[in-house]
Amino acid sequence: MEEMLRRHIEQVVRLSDEEYAFVRQHFSIKYGKKGGLLIDKSEPVRYVYLVISGLLKLVYHDKTGREHIISFAMEDWWETDYPAWFSRQPASLSLQCIEDTQVYCLSLDSYQTICAKLQKMEHFFLQKANRGHMASQERILSFLTATPRERYEQVLRKQPTLLQRVPKVLLAAYLGVSRETLSRLWRNNNRTAG
Amino acid sequence: MEEMLRRHIEQVVRLSDEEYAFVRQHFSIKYGKKGGLLIDKSEPVRYVYLVISGLLKLVYHDKTGREHIISFAMEDWWETDYPAWFSRQPASLSLQCIEDTQVYCLSLDSYQTICAKLQKMEHFFLQKANRGHMASQERILSFLTATPRERYEQVLRKQPTLLQRVPKVLLAAYLGVSRETLSRLWRNNNRTAG
Repeated sequence: MEEMLRRHIEQVVRLSDEEYAFVRQHFSIKYGKKGGLLIDKSEPVRYVYLVISGLLKLVYHDKTGREHIISFAMEDWWETDYPAWFSRQPASLSLQCIEDTQVYCLSLDSYQTICAKLQKMEHFFLQKANRGHMASQERILSFLTATPRERYEQVLRKQPTLLQRVPKVLLAAYLGVSRETLSRLWRNNNRTAG
Repeated sequence: MEEMLRRHIEQVVRLSDEEYAFVRQHFSIKYGKKGGLLIDKSEPVRYVYLVISGLLKLVYHDKTGREHIISFAMEDWWETDYPAWFSRQPASLSLQCIEDTQVYCLSLDSYQTICAKLQKMEHFFLQKANRGHMASQERILSFLTATPRERYEQVLRKQPTLLQRVPKVLLAAYLGVSRETLSRLWRNNNRTAG
């Protein structure tokens, strides 16, 4: 368990025992119950989270109270309300546990400290930020070019386990379609598969 | 002119003359005529570009040949087909000049060299990547939650000069609406404003 953080970082940069000890002391561990909130809209955003186990949703509630899902975060994902976290403003998004979830927590001050003191960690976070940026651009492209059916099939292909772990109503909020449209896609897909 | 790169970088990190000279030697300057391509679909992606003057569009052509606009890049913007550039794969996007455009060019090898040799530059690119990631997330949110009219008004608010510089057919491809829908929004808006 304790070593997940090190394994995760060392997929990008190698750390000495001393360097890892320095990095590790800036992280705390937190447990969230299914349904619990790690980030609550309008509250301060204290941490960026790295998921150890479990599943989170990053959501926006519009004026009518309808929930829109920006992303799902599972094992090995970093997630927070980044604009609010970086600018030390209250959250405009919420981060909620879909399953019982265990996370590492890193404050902005700690993030800045470990980046400044250890270039390897600045390099690690640059890699992560670039990948996050590319994944977001891919999602923009799928909104511009793909039909709801194609977006559904992209999720099937890229995150197959998500379909087992996420209730259909949440998947619809992620794809930006109604629950009825999703049920139709689901039925058609199973018919094709069978 | 020559100093734009330095001014741009020093909005984030201060460089000594020696450090700037080291960074500067990794950039070349290129001129693109209106209509010219900096990145051509299926060709190698040699550079990330920083716009000195002019205007670019990053586009995806779908199977039917229809053009979808992922972003407009103007003065002070960095742009490339990032997934292709980082992975040294052929482009799946095109980057085209909407106006006569002047850019700095940076190869992936040079990017990696200046990041490795100068932590300040790794820090600079981390800031840029984080901002790019946040801007993309904002755009995803606007696809999930905003009507075409609201997306149009967001552009009016955030990039007012874009409306003067970009033909309406391109703006429609950026907003993900038909040209007819955009004309209706445009007329309604001018009526409200008048």
